[in-house]
Amino acid sequence: MGIVLRDGKIVTDTVCYQADIRIQGEIIAAVGSQVAQAGDTVLSAEGCYIFPGGIDAHTHFDLPVGAMSTADDFASGTKAAILGGTTTIIDYATQFKGETLKQGLENWHQRAGGKCYADYGFHMAITDWNDNVSREIPWLSREAGVSSVKLYMAYKNVMQVDDSALFQVLERSRECSILTCVHCENGDIVDNLIRKFRQQGKTTPAYHPLSRPPRVEQEAVNRLMVLSETADAPVLVVHLSCREALETVAKAKDRGVQVFAETCPQYLVLDDSMYQDTSFSCAKYVISPPLRGKENQEYLWNGLKAGILDTVATDHCSFNFHGQKEVGRGDFSKIPNGAPGVEHRLGLLYTYGVKAGKISLTQFVDKVATQPAKLFGIFPKKGTIAPGSDADLVIWDEQRQSTIGAATHAHKVDYSPYEGMKQQGQAIHVFLRGQHVVKNGKVCTDNPKGQYLFRKPFQNPKEKTK
Amino acid sequence: MGIVLRDGKIVTDTVCYQADIRIQGEIIAAVGSQVAQAGDTVLSAEGCYIFPGGIDAHTHFDLPVGAMSTADDFASGTKAAILGGTTTIIDYATQFKGETLKQGLENWHQRAGGKCYADYGFHMAITDWNDNVSREIPWLSREAGVSSVKLYMAYKNVMQVDDSALFQVLERSRECSILTCVHCENGDIVDNLIRKFRQQGKTTPAYHPLSRPPRVEQEAVNRLMVLSETADAPVLVVHLSCREALETVAKAKDRGVQVFAETCPQYLVLDDSMYQDTSFSCAKYVISPPLRGKENQEYLWNGLKAGILDTVATDHCSFNFHGQKEVGRGDFSKIPNGAPGVEHRLGLLYTYGVKAGKISLTQFVDKVATQPAKLFGIFPKKGTIAPGSDADLVIWDEQRQSTIGAATHAHKVDYSPYEGMKQQGQAIHVFLRGQHVVKNGKVCTDNPKGQYLFRKPFQNPKEKTK
Amino acid sequence: MGIVLRDGKIVTDTVCYQADIRIQGEIIAAVGSQVAQAGDTVLSAEGCYIFPGGIDAHTHFDLPVGAMSTADDFASGTKAAILGGTTTIIDYATQFKGETLKQGLENWHQRAGGKCYADYGFHMAITDWNDNVSREIPWLSREAGVSSVKLYMAYKNVMQVDDSALFQVLERSRECSILTCVHCENGDIVDNLIRKFRQQGKTTPAYHPLSRPPRVEQEAVNRLMVLSETADAPVLVVHLSCREALETVAKAKDRGVQVFAETCPQYLVLDDSMYQDTSFSCAKYVISPPLRGKENQEYLWNGLKAGILDTVATDHCSFNFHGQKEVGRGDFSKIPNGAPGVEHRLGLLYTYGVKAGKISLTQFVDKVATQPAKLFGIFPKKGTIAPGSDADLVIWDEQRQSTIGAATHAHKVDYSPYEGMKQQGQAIHVFLRGQHVVKNGKVCTDNPKGQYLFRKPFQNPKEKTK
Amino acid sequence: MGIVLRDGKIVTDTVCYQADIRIQGEIIAAVGSQVAQAGDTVLSAEGCYIFPGGIDAHTHFDLPVGAMSTADDFASGTKAAILGGTTTIIDYATQFKGETLKQGLENWHQRAGGKCYADYGFHMAITDWNDNVSREIPWLSREAGVSSVKLYMAYKNVMQVDDSALFQVLERSRECSILTCVHCENGDIVDNLIRKFRQQGKTTPAYHPLSRPPRVEQEAVNRLMVLSETADAPVLVVHLSCREALETVAKAKDRGVQVFAETCPQYLVLDDSMYQDTSFSCAKYVISPPLRGKENQEYLWNGLKAGILDTVATDHCSFNFHGQKEVGRGDFSKIPNGAPGVEHRLGLLYTYGVKAGKISLTQFVDKVATQPAKLFGIFPKKGTIAPGSDADLVIWDEQRQSTIGAATHAHKVDYSPYEGMKQQGQAIHVFLRGQHVVKNGKVCTDNPKGQYLFRKPFQNPKEKTK
Ligand SMILES: [Zn+2]
Ligand SMILES: [Zn+2]
Ligand SMILES: [Zn+2]
Ligand SMILES: [Zn+2]
Ligand SMILES: [Zn+2]
Ligand SMILES: [Zn+2]
Ligand SMILES: [Zn+2]
Ligand SMILES: [Zn+2]
Repeated sequence: MGIVLRDGKIVTDTVCYQADIRIQGEIIAAVGSQVAQAGDTVLSAEGCYIFPGGIDAHTHFDLPVGAMSTADDFASGTKAAILGGTTTIIDYATQFKGETLKQGLENWHQRAGGKCYADYGFHMAITDWNDNVSREIPWLSREAGVSSVKLYMAYKNVMQVDDSALFQVLERSRECSILTCVHCENGDIVDNLIRKFRQQGKTTPAYHPLSRPPRVEQEAVNRLMVLSETADAPVLVVHLSCREALETVAKAKDRGVQVFAETCPQYLVLDDSMYQDTSFSCAKYVISPPLRGKENQEYLWNGLKAGILDTVATDHCSFNFHGQKEVGRGDFSKIPNGAPGVEHRLGLLYTYGVKAGKISLTQFVDKVATQPAKLFGIFPKKGTIAPGSDADLVIWDEQRQSTIGAATHAHKVDYSPYEGMKQQGQAIHVFLRGQHVVKNGKVCTDNPKGQYLFRKPFQNPKEKTK
Repeated sequence: MGIVLRDGKIVTDTVCYQADIRIQGEIIAAVGSQVAQAGDTVLSAEGCYIFPGGIDAHTHFDLPVGAMSTADDFASGTKAAILGGTTTIIDYATQFKGETLKQGLENWHQRAGGKCYADYGFHMAITDWNDNVSREIPWLSREAGVSSVKLYMAYKNVMQVDDSALFQVLERSRECSILTCVHCENGDIVDNLIRKFRQQGKTTPAYHPLSRPPRVEQEAVNRLMVLSETADAPVLVVHLSCREALETVAKAKDRGVQVFAETCPQYLVLDDSMYQDTSFSCAKYVISPPLRGKENQEYLWNGLKAGILDTVATDHCSFNFHGQKEVGRGDFSKIPNGAPGVEHRLGLLYTYGVKAGKISLTQFVDKVATQPAKLFGIFPKKGTIAPGSDADLVIWDEQRQSTIGAATHAHKVDYSPYEGMKQQGQAIHVFLRGQHVVKNGKVCTDNPKGQYLFRKPFQNPKEKTK
Repeated sequence: MGIVLRDGKIVTDTVCYQADIRIQGEIIAAVGSQVAQAGDTVLSAEGCYIFPGGIDAHTHFDLPVGAMSTADDFASGTKAAILGGTTTIIDYATQFKGETLKQGLENWHQRAGGKCYADYGFHMAITDWNDNVSREIPWLSREAGVSSVKLYMAYKNVMQVDDSALFQVLERSRECSILTCVHCENGDIVDNLIRKFRQQGKTTPAYHPLSRPPRVEQEAVNRLMVLSETADAPVLVVHLSCREALETVAKAKDRGVQVFAETCPQYLVLDDSMYQDTSFSCAKYVISPPLRGKENQEYLWNGLKAGILDTVATDHCSFNFHGQKEVGRGDFSKIPNGAPGVEHRLGLLYTYGVKAGKISLTQFVDKVATQPAKLFGIFPKKGTIAPGSDADLVIWDEQRQSTIGAATHAHKVDYSPYEGMKQQGQAIHVFLRGQHVVKNGKVCTDNPKGQYLFRKPFQNPKEKTK
Repeated sequence: MGIVLRDGKIVTDTVCYQADIRIQGEIIAAVGSQVAQAGDTVLSAEGCYIFPGGIDAHTHFDLPVGAMSTADDFASGTKAAILGGTTTIIDYATQFKGETLKQGLENWHQRAGGKCYADYGFHMAITDWNDNVSREIPWLSREAGVSSVKLYMAYKNVMQVDDSALFQVLERSRECSILTCVHCENGDIVDNLIRKFRQQGKTTPAYHPLSRPPRVEQEAVNRLMVLSETADAPVLVVHLSCREALETVAKAKDRGVQVFAETCPQYLVLDDSMYQDTSFSCAKYVISPPLRGKENQEYLWNGLKAGILDTVATDHCSFNFHGQKEVGRGDFSKIPNGAPGVEHRLGLLYTYGVKAGKISLTQFVDKVATQPAKLFGIFPKKGTIAPGSDADLVIWDEQRQSTIGAATHAHKVDYSPYEGMKQQGQAIHVFLRGQHVVKNGKVCTDNPKGQYLFRKPFQNPKEKTK
């Protein structure tokens, strides 16, 4: 009474080989030949790849920003996710000023509970650090299943914390086996550049990238490296976007700093020529860090290949162009920052990475599934194809072609930053813990089956495996 | 009629999990639960790790050096190898001056044929580059199963080639999918430092390391990086020994140069304090590059962890202290360079790496088996545990303790550089293509079952996987 | 009616040659042979060097720190200065919280006026940045003669400013041709390390250096480099103390950042072994940054030689051991930071730099006189020996030997950090604007002749000379 | 009976000030006001700068290359030099294969003797290193007045020496206080790239730069740094042309390697767009290293400013386009390498450096006169304006404008690489050891008054000044 996926090409982060997979209940029972048992259902995967389910460790669903909320909530967001081959998302629960972490987390459990089509976990974004919050950290890690926190070095007066808070969080996170994720931009400099542009009447979206140049990201990354070294605690640089930041991470890794780094599809396949459009429509690309000069892309691809960059996540944070992005007409600094993407992560990375010869198939799996699983405490339950692991599986038909666009995407937002781009390959079948949730490229359930993931404490994948 | 290894903890380069392995013939048929078929033999691996068979890609067995030969030949060398958990070795066949590559390779086939207890392949060391040799390269790669060559930037007037030869070999190797391995030391500087010491009457072995300082290795590595970039061809730096060379490789990888690097146990666990012994006995440690200052070890361990160093091989090249090393009494430059080690690679790396918390178990497997298999064209036949791969398996009992020494080692040489050092864990059972060759820690066959490996053309593991 | 200094060896920052100098009034009238005019007084300088008067651009005289004041005021401080061959000092006038710059500067004019034996200028230390202060900047540069400001990245809650203030000061200083001097240590990290040590009961002075490790200085320097680049404004790193900070400055200079750097004698000739004394007496060495590991000294000397370090100043800030330093018994963080040194800058640098072969005579003059004059807007009036320049001249007898110590120094403080160290050479005659103020090694006037220096706007000495 | 230059603005490498200069015989007697003596001749320099006479330390006059000789000999070359404000040249005397150094030097004395309008010295280019030559080194330094040698890492089979020769020359030069100048390009790689292009029928001059890419220069520079460190001997990188080489020198200086570097006007003001001309006329720009991408210029200007580059020389090596360059029609590798420039060094550097705001006036003097004097053993006799120095003086009228071109230049060659470029300023009067050799912009003597310079042994200007 298991399920056997027959004749697919299994791809993990290290090897690609042809074999059958037998699923029993929620779990992979065996891999190899002659593994079927009497009564098993058989699904042919001939000619297709089988990937472990994708893990997108950077989403913002149903996020309140001032008076508005992101366009996608947990239902639309995770439905788009599974359609794209992502069976696990980790969203940023946020502690707002004055709240406890428990309140912040509870808030997000309310938002997500019962709505998710993918398994889900939370990072905890801390914006108001104090002694009481510090005392909640052990609970977070040991009871709440949250083994990663997030801090912002940018967004002065809103999310930004100072180096003292950063240091204290790092000390605490080391003691409690938590990984600290950090948005790295020097918010003080950004704030001043914005002020300057506004004073000069430079208010169109084209000034957004000029207010956040690469050095501003590089500085924050370097500072974080020193904080990590001084506090002897691991960190992850989220949405790394440029050569300068990459080289700073590379040097730190080379000298043994416990640093990991994530980049996003938008930095790999889009560039700052998008901002040349003088109309307001380039507000669609107002994200932070901004899109960079095209020459950065080769560095980022090489960074993935060379292991400087560990994961690819989307930073999915969708706002409708009409009614939401438009709030910033007349002042680019008022445009809500963010763009959609959770649906197209595997497709974009497969098409513009694997097919274009930038990275190998095994590296593709490593960046979209294996490394996020390892860094966020859900490996080998998630992130690989091995006996005993969750049967989160993606049957990828590399023959299918499609075109990305707002008219057809599952995201509940009125534009796509990738409008008109081609995608090669598609997730035709997706299994979530043994349940067939996408069939022939369509979601085949109205029942959100995603479960909350109690994640294990952080353990450096380069240090010990038990 | 297969064999089932039951209840072991399978370790690959990426994951550690408990499952059964079913071997059928020479091949792994399945991994998981309920994989046994009627008639299978069962061997319990409970409480033990199961590693893919080790691959030592740098040995010198039965190597003629002037009037002498190395102490170990292919029989004693490969017997020591399998006892230590290494089921594949790749030895350096050498083209001597005036020979064709075919003659050089034939010579080594003669030396190894019918004597090997492990599977074996050859790299081709080229010491006499010319147009005729250049014309043999396609044959080497496509027919002879040799997809890697070796060049020496040191040993002036003997093995050393100039940059012109290096460049031409790189061009040719790129065209023919060959990986070029290089011994990186600036032989001209070494030669002059030796001359200077001899003129000054400084002839004891303690002057050996002073004649080959780290900068001399670093310079050669940097030059090789430029040759690799200019010729657009992949290279592997063999036996990298020091921080300076490591940093040069790290920077090159970071900017996209196709470079790989190997280090050896001796550089990880021994240091230059060995040369403080003023008697001639430190001749035992006359190897090139020499042992380095102890501070280099942390950099090398971090290099393994950070992926700057891809593989660990032994550079096993054994000479008896009595009668062979002694030739250099009165002139350190006449001491034959080299030391034994093929038997202890897994044991040393497990004990001083994994148990000491320097690297993880999965990284251990990666460096001793998976990466060498990938770089030298025998993956996934070798180097992993997956359905379809060769059943080269090591059952490692991590409870066993032993002490390394010449009295007990299998090497046919009269000393051990690791004399008296403790080893944690032991290969109690070893399978070579499904054949049980080590049983309860003893070689259980008198029949050398090793086969010659026709290796596939080189393919950058970071670029494409088919 | 001039004065002719005959037969001395004139040393400038570029050349050493034998010639006579004719002084007329306050000015050097001519240099060469046959320059004497009828009626001139002649003083033989045979066998001696003649240096331009030293410029110490980093002193703290009569500085209020909490309830106490530094031991030296402007009278004792500048008397010690001229005895040591320093004819110009630039002290840090401080704007305290709530004050205008004008009030801060006026305060310092009160402290210094009529008391100085050397010419003097002020930098303006800004601790309370706001829009009103910003509006005072043009006045500071154009009317008050103050073309440099100072900011602190350390001393949280006291002097420390955030990056936003730094950025705004840099923008303003660029517009007004002001050089921004910065104390570079990450005060947030220091603050947390101090807190941690106090919690752990680690309160002896030996924990002072551990609370301010080199990375903490390096981080601040790197951040400053990015602020300087982003604001396109020149900066000077004061009292640079360690290799890591030096390398960061070197890389920034190499890529064109407008950065200058100062070090101090204490970092060149003392090291952190001073803190091994477990008694409280190592409180004498509680300075910030702290003394560093001895291996840093070679890097700093090379930094002077290679032009990475531009100037040598003392950071003279003296507190009596008895009664002042002792306030920190039981809590190292309460020890007032600082040590004396204005008297011995030339002597230490000559003895341990020039005589020890670390730097050349011309470099010595460059670092103690020429570069400070150029960077702080008083060149060529000060800082060189050329017709038209002020006759600030030091006749240096390199045969004289002495021993530094509290019993004999002119500083009004009860200890010397250099107690017992030998000095080679002595300023036997010193002229300040043509006035003979030190004769045969003794101050020969009771009349403080020092004048306030209205310094010119900052001009990058590497960019344009008019 | 002296000469007084009145009211000029004297410029040295460190200061610019207005004063009179009194010349007595060949020497500067005094500088200042009231320095004239009865009977002196007075020349007004009002409104003009007075520079120390320029020193061009890299020329090739009357150089035999195969069957031809350079277009300029010592007469035409030095006449052009003084017209341009250069009063000293140092030419590369060459030891050809089989010759002694004495023969090589004697040969050049024959070529130059009695023909020079500027003072002149020789470096000794060594192309055939052996024990006999080694024994000549002390004579070279101590008796022949030649304190610098030159080696080539390029021009395989002609001038190129191997690392062993380089190392031995460095050892010898350290013992004999000689500075080793090196042409840094990896000749083996260049040779192979040329071979490849010829095989592919790519024979036009546009392939010249492609056969000598920047990495090829960078590699040689890095190798030289290691040779210099290992042999503990000073080196000078001649004609440094690109960012990569510059950064390698910068890092070496930062860590204390005794390295100096020279660049040339052609790399500062011309770029590789010259090679886009598909006709043969771009043969005019066939020089080695080749012109580089325009982006390198900013790095080189910053290198001058930051002190990474010490001197600017011309590498003047002129071949007529007609009859000489044309030999390479049909094969770019046969085009004689080199271009003229000795006449325009000061003009180009003044116009495109000082007037364009890239470097200051004092840096201009430093690079064209002071540093070459210091590095090549003729300071302070040459290279500065100070009492006791040679009266080599240039009165520079910065108002004069001209256009560079073959029709008007003094070079005896049929083209100028700077054809049509504007020059601001001109040497209207030039004095060579007190003799007025250029008057109102014209050579005013038919009598070549240049003397051979016995140069002092090399002394690191950053280490000791006596
Ligand atoms: Zn963010
Ligand atoms: Zn985000
Ligand atoms: Zn070797
Ligand atoms: Zn070897
Ligand atoms: Zn300070
Ligand atoms: Zn201070
Ligand atoms: Zn050259
Ligand atoms: Zn030349």
